[in-house]
Amino acid sequence: MTQYIIQRLCIIGVGLIGGSLARALKKTGAVAEVIGVSRDVSHLERAKSLGVIDNYETEISKAVKGCDMVVLAVPLGAMQSVFEQIAPVISDDMVITDVGSAKASVVKSAQHAFKSIPANLVPGHPIAGTEKSGVEASFPELYENRRVIITPLETSSPLAISKVRNMWQACGAEVVETSIEHHDEVLAATSHLPHMLAYSLVDTLAKMDAKNEIFDFAAGGFRDFTRIASSDPDMWHDICISNKDALVKMIKIFSDDLQLLANAIECNDSVYLKETFSRAKKARDEFCEDKNINDSPE
Amino acid sequence: MTQYIIQRLCIIGVGLIGGSLARALKKTGAVAEVIGVSRDVSHLERAKSLGVIDNYETEISKAVKGCDMVVLAVPLGAMQSVFEQIAPVISDDMVITDVGSAKASVVKSAQHAFKSIPANLVPGHPIAGTEKSGVEASFPELYENRRVIITPLETSSPLAISKVRNMWQACGAEVVETSIEHHDEVLAATSHLPHMLAYSLVDTLAKMDAKNEIFDFAAGGFRDFTRIASSDPDMWHDICISNKDALVKMIKIFSDDLQLLANAIECNDSVYLKETFSRAKKARDEFCEDKNINDSPE
Repeated sequence: MTQYIIQRLCIIGVGLIGGSLARALKKTGAVAEVIGVSRDVSHLERAKSLGVIDNYETEISKAVKGCDMVVLAVPLGAMQSVFEQIAPVISDDMVITDVGSAKASVVKSAQHAFKSIPANLVPGHPIAGTEKSGVEASFPELYENRRVIITPLETSSPLAISKVRNMWQACGAEVVETSIEHHDEVLAATSHLPHMLAYSLVDTLAKMDAKNEIFDFAAGGFRDFTRIASSDPDMWHDICISNKDALVKMIKIFSDDLQLLANAIECNDSVYLKETFSRAKKARDEFCEDKNINDSPE
Repeated sequence: MTQYIIQRLCIIGVGLIGGSLARALKKTGAVAEVIGVSRDVSHLERAKSLGVIDNYETEISKAVKGCDMVVLAVPLGAMQSVFEQIAPVISDDMVITDVGSAKASVVKSAQHAFKSIPANLVPGHPIAGTEKSGVEASFPELYENRRVIITPLETSSPLAISKVRNMWQACGAEVVETSIEHHDEVLAATSHLPHMLAYSLVDTLAKMDAKNEIFDFAAGGFRDFTRIASSDPDMWHDICISNKDALVKMIKIFSDDLQLLANAIECNDSVYLKETFSRAKKARDEFCEDKNINDSPE
């Protein structure tokens, strides 16, 4: 007899992230049944015909009934509404987790919806993705050797934590536990700030008089630097609003350092410039060594 | 009888850029003889054994004698010293060009060295490179379908301009003519500013307490965004100092826009955020379409 980690899994938002989770758990035999939820029936039909989900519902309150695991894979801006629809039908043996890129805001949304945070809620964030989106792009290997950060609350049940952990490990991911605050600060630094810089740079250049020539003369370095400026604007709007405090703080720290660099350029401060560039190069080169990445600038 | 574009070419600084130019011109039969110059004889021996140069000299004043084309492929910080060594032996049928990433500073260096700028000096800048450096990395196709910007002065001789233009076209490049000021502004925007942002971001993160985790949790977006922070610190020091005015101006414009973005995040200004991100995404996507690049963010 198979030992399932999850008997009945409800995935709310069956896109790349939710769909890949379902596929991975099915492939490894970790789940008995997967219920997908979306407002769009044709989308759910597609997910079912692809074998990503076994059944579907369009109403969250119906879908989650009898589920021992509920995963919210919706945009950050939709979390609270989903929690509100789960709240009336929540049960003691239902573990709830999410995949949002900012964690304090998810907990706040849960607080609003549930009044007191359920012991079975364990916020999570898989550090994975591809350039594509939608259920058609989902694949079972997405989480293999990738990190998943979980940020349990003090009130979280050890059993629920362990169940979420086991779910991601079954997908081949490495699960790391941090505090909510720490997650949001680290992600602000490593992901949210770079996205703001890329968006802001491309927008600044696009507004300039010499716009056409600027994009015309741009070479490989520019292309790589600005790749993330092609990200989904709505998703990044939600992330900005959701991780506002940590992100605004990081932009301030970055801006102050950039101002010091500009001052050094203006004053021909060769020592400052060479030291800064060398420190950055060393950190970047070490990052690549650690990750076994072989790339260099043009 | 072959019609050479250049009879005797002197390349000062036989690295990736100078070496690839020599190889391309030799391959296409556009040059009769190539003389390499460096302070390092073993380096010149290697270039000769690779067939990149035919002969070499360690003294610039000797090397340029009898040359109808002299190309300065040295760091921006070394330009003035090279011009000073050419000045005493310059002749009327010697065309001089360079490959520096900032053009006003090259002209200023020439002014200092020559007192009055020679009519045969035509500053240039090939927008090309690879992740490698040194003569071993040079190859004849480096300039194929790449842009070369030339920035002739009002006093530049039409014959000299045409000779520099023909040289790069023989390498398969498209030659574009702009003013010095315009070149420096466009390159500050499209290349120098992004390098400053990448260096500054990596250095800011490397100085943070959570440094190890930050680099640990960094994913593909961060890797691409910071690739150019692995660039050569000495070269970028020279570029900063050489293109100081245009670069400091661009950093100021960028910083002001970034501050507006931070304000919008702080005030939950959804309209501003979505509009900015959408404009940037559109500009980036169009840039990729124009360049036939197929890439997207994670």
